[in-house]
Amino acid sequence: MGLPQSMSKSEGTDHIFVPRSELGRRHGSLHQRLDGLQLDMTLIATNVNLYYLAGSMQEGMLAMSGELPGPVYLARRAFDRARHESALEDVRPAVGPAKLSGALGVSTVRRLGLELDAVPHAWADRLVRGLEASTGSRPELVDVSQAIREVRSIKSDWEVRMVEGAARQSDAAMERVPEVLREGMTELELSVEVESTMRRLGWEGITRMHRFGSEMYMGGVLSGPSGVRTTGFQAVIGGWGLSPAVPHGASRRSIGRGEPITVDICGSHAGYLTDETRTFSLGPLPEALREAQSAAEELLRALERELRPGMRAGGVWERAHALATDLGIIEGFMGVGDERMRFIGHGVGLELDELPVLAQGMEAAVPEGAVIALEPKLVHPGVGVLGEENTYHMTADGLRLLTMARRGLVEV
Amino acid sequence: MGLPQSMSKSEGTDHIFVPRSELGRRHGSLHQRLDGLQLDMTLIATNVNLYYLAGSMQEGMLAMSGELPGPVYLARRAFDRARHESALEDVRPAVGPAKLSGALGVSTVRRLGLELDAVPHAWADRLVRGLEASTGSRPELVDVSQAIREVRSIKSDWEVRMVEGAARQSDAAMERVPEVLREGMTELELSVEVESTMRRLGWEGITRMHRFGSEMYMGGVLSGPSGVRTTGFQAVIGGWGLSPAVPHGASRRSIGRGEPITVDICGSHAGYLTDETRTFSLGPLPEALREAQSAAEELLRALERELRPGMRAGGVWERAHALATDLGIIEGFMGVGDERMRFIGHGVGLELDELPVLAQGMEAAVPEGAVIALEPKLVHPGVGVLGEENTYHMTADGLRLLTMARRGLVEV
Repeated sequence: MGLPQSMSKSEGTDHIFVPRSELGRRHGSLHQRLDGLQLDMTLIATNVNLYYLAGSMQEGMLAMSGELPGPVYLARRAFDRARHESALEDVRPAVGPAKLSGALGVSTVRRLGLELDAVPHAWADRLVRGLEASTGSRPELVDVSQAIREVRSIKSDWEVRMVEGAARQSDAAMERVPEVLREGMTELELSVEVESTMRRLGWEGITRMHRFGSEMYMGGVLSGPSGVRTTGFQAVIGGWGLSPAVPHGASRRSIGRGEPITVDICGSHAGYLTDETRTFSLGPLPEALREAQSAAEELLRALERELRPGMRAGGVWERAHALATDLGIIEGFMGVGDERMRFIGHGVGLELDELPVLAQGMEAAVPEGAVIALEPKLVHPGVGVLGEENTYHMTADGLRLLTMARRGLVEV
Repeated sequence: MGLPQSMSKSEGTDHIFVPRSELGRRHGSLHQRLDGLQLDMTLIATNVNLYYLAGSMQEGMLAMSGELPGPVYLARRAFDRARHESALEDVRPAVGPAKLSGALGVSTVRRLGLELDAVPHAWADRLVRGLEASTGSRPELVDVSQAIREVRSIKSDWEVRMVEGAARQSDAAMERVPEVLREGMTELELSVEVESTMRRLGWEGITRMHRFGSEMYMGGVLSGPSGVRTTGFQAVIGGWGLSPAVPHGASRRSIGRGEPITVDICGSHAGYLTDETRTFSLGPLPEALREAQSAAEELLRALERELRPGMRAGGVWERAHALATDLGIIEGFMGVGDERMRFIGHGVGLELDELPVLAQGMEAAVPEGAVIALEPKLVHPGVGVLGEENTYHMTADGLRLLTMARRGLVEV
C-alpha cells in the first residue's frame, strides 16, 4: 500500500499492519458464510470488525456487495490515515446514508446486512431511512454479527503470532509479581506494576468485549476475598475495582499473608488479546488451599491433553465438570450459588469473549484454528480464588500453549 | 442502604457511592425533561446512564414509569452487588423482555423511552418483541438519550468534587513529566510514567465516550509530528498509538530535543473525567513555537475571563476564532486542511464528549453548572502541536479552574 505523502516513515512508527493476504482470506471466509443470506449489501461499522476486515478502524464503514468489484472502505475522519493503514485497494471518503447507494453504484438494497447486535438502534434507523429515500424501497435488515464472529473464531498463523505477542506481555507481568510483592501493598499498587510491565512491552490499554454492556480495563489483581467478588460481566471473578463506575479489578485492599492472590490479566498486541491467570501468595497458603490449587492445575493439564478439534464446546464443559467432581473440587468450581458459571473457557482474539464458548449446552464444535482460554477456578467464599488460566491454539494435534509464565502456585 | 450480609465493610473497600440525594436530584431533572414525551415507560440500559441514574452499572436495566412509585433497578448478574452499590430503594432481579411488563405491573406500553443512539439494534428489537408479546401492542420507540445528556451536562457540587478528584490525578501526572523526561525516551515510556502516576492516585483505566465508534485509552503523550496525527475520533490531535487496532496515543517514537511534547490526558475518579493538556520540551523550543504557545495561552486566559453562563455555545467558538485571528495564530488553529475542527471545547463528565459542544453553529446555551474543557491548539504540520487545555466549572460568576498543573510551556 502506498504511503500518502503526508505520512512518511520518518514519523517513526513501526506499526504492524494487517497484510493484504490476511484480509483476502477473511473476506473469502466471510463471503462463504454470508452466501445463503441473499444480501444485496453489507455494511460493517464497529471498530473491531472494521479492523478485522479493513485493517483500520478510522471513523467510517466497510461496504460489501456482489455489485462491487471488492470491499469498499468508506472513511470519514482521518481519511489519509485510513488509506495508510488499510491494505484494501478501494478506500474512499465517506458519504451520508442518503448518498450511499449512489456513491457505491448499488441501486437496489432489498436485504441489508448489518452488525445488528452491536450498532446503535438510531444509527441503523438513520441508515435505513437514507437508503429508502435514495433507492425508493426500505431494506430489510439481516444480522451478520454471528457470521463474522464465526469467521473470526478461526485464527490464521499471522493472528496466532499476534496473540503470542500479547502473551509475552502477560507472561512478563506474571514474572514481575514475585519481584515486587510485599506485605501491606495494596491490590492497586500491585496492579500498577502489572500494567506498566505490560504497557512497556506494547500493551494497548483497551480490552474489547462483544457482549452489550461488558467493559473491562486490564483484568484483575485480586487478593483473598476480593477475588470472590463477582461483577456484571460474565466471568467467575471480578474484584471490587476503585468505585462502582468501573466495578472490577484491583481495589485499595491491602494484601495479607497466606491468602491467594489471583492475577487474571489480558495482554494486547495489534488488537489481539491473551487471557492468563496465575495464583500467588505472600508466605505459604494453608494446606487445604494448596491442595485445591494443585487439583485445579491437574484439571487444566487433563483438559490440555484431551482436547481435540471438532469436540463439542458443551462437551468440554461436561468433561471439566466431571474432572472437578473426580478431583473433589466441585464445591466452588467456577463460582458459588446463583452466580456459578457453567463454563470452563472461551475464544480469545480481538475481543475477550469470542467464540467458541465452552459452556453447558453449547452444541458448536471447537474448530481447528481456534484460540481459546481455559480457566478452571475454585471460589472459596471469604477466603479467595484458586486456579490457573492459559490461552491456547487448537491445532490439528490438539492444544498448543501460548501463555508461558511459570506454572504452579508461586509462594513469595 | 443496607449491606447484604455477604458484603461486610471488612472486605476493605473505601468506595465512593453516589448518594441518594444525588440520585433524587437527577431523577427530578430528568422527569421534567421527559414530561412532554408522553412515555409510558423508560428503560435505561447503558453503563454510563445506569451509573448516573442508579449509582451502579451491574448487568441490568433501570425502569421508570408513571405507573411505578419510583425507579426500579433490575439487575441480572451480581445482584447483591447492585443492591450494595445503588442507593435506590427498589432493586429487583432482572427478568426477560416478555416478563417485563408483568413483573413491573405496567400493563400498557404504547410509548417506550430508550437510549436509541446507544443501545444495539437487536437488543431494542428483542425488547420490543417481548413487550408486544406480553402486552398485545407494539410500543413506539422514543429516544431519551439527548434528554439524559442535557441533564448530565449540569453538574452538582458533588459531581464537581468528583471531577476535582480526577484533576488531582492529571495534575500530578503533569508534574511528573519534567521529573522523568530525558532524551531518547520514547513517547510510550513517557506515557507509562503518566499512566502509572494517575493510576496510583485512583485512575480507573476506562475513558468513556458517547459517540458511536469513539474509543480512547488514556489520552495522548505525543512528541513533535506525532501530535499532528489525527485519528478517527473527533479531536484536534490523536497520535499514532502502537498499532491500527488502537490508533491513538503514544507511539514508539523517540522524543527529540527542541520539539513540542503534547501531553493531553484524562484523569478519572468515581467515573468522572478531566481533560488537561500541557506542552513540554527537551531543551528550548524555537522562538516561533514559543511565541505560538504564548499566544494560545493568552487566548485561553481571555476565554477564561470572558465566559459566562448563558452564552451561546457557538458564540464561544466564534469568540475563540476571533481571538486566534487577532493574535495571529489562525493558521493551524484547531487543525489544518480538511481535518480542522471548528470547535474550542466540550463538556466533560462521565464521558469525555459531553454537552455542551462549543462548536460552530451550536445554538444551545452554556448552562450554569456545566463542566467544560477549553483547548486552544495550534497544529504545525511536520513540527508539532502547541496549546493548553483545562477543565472548568461554569459558576454564576464565570469559569472556575479545576485542573491545576503548573501553566505555561515547561522546557526541561
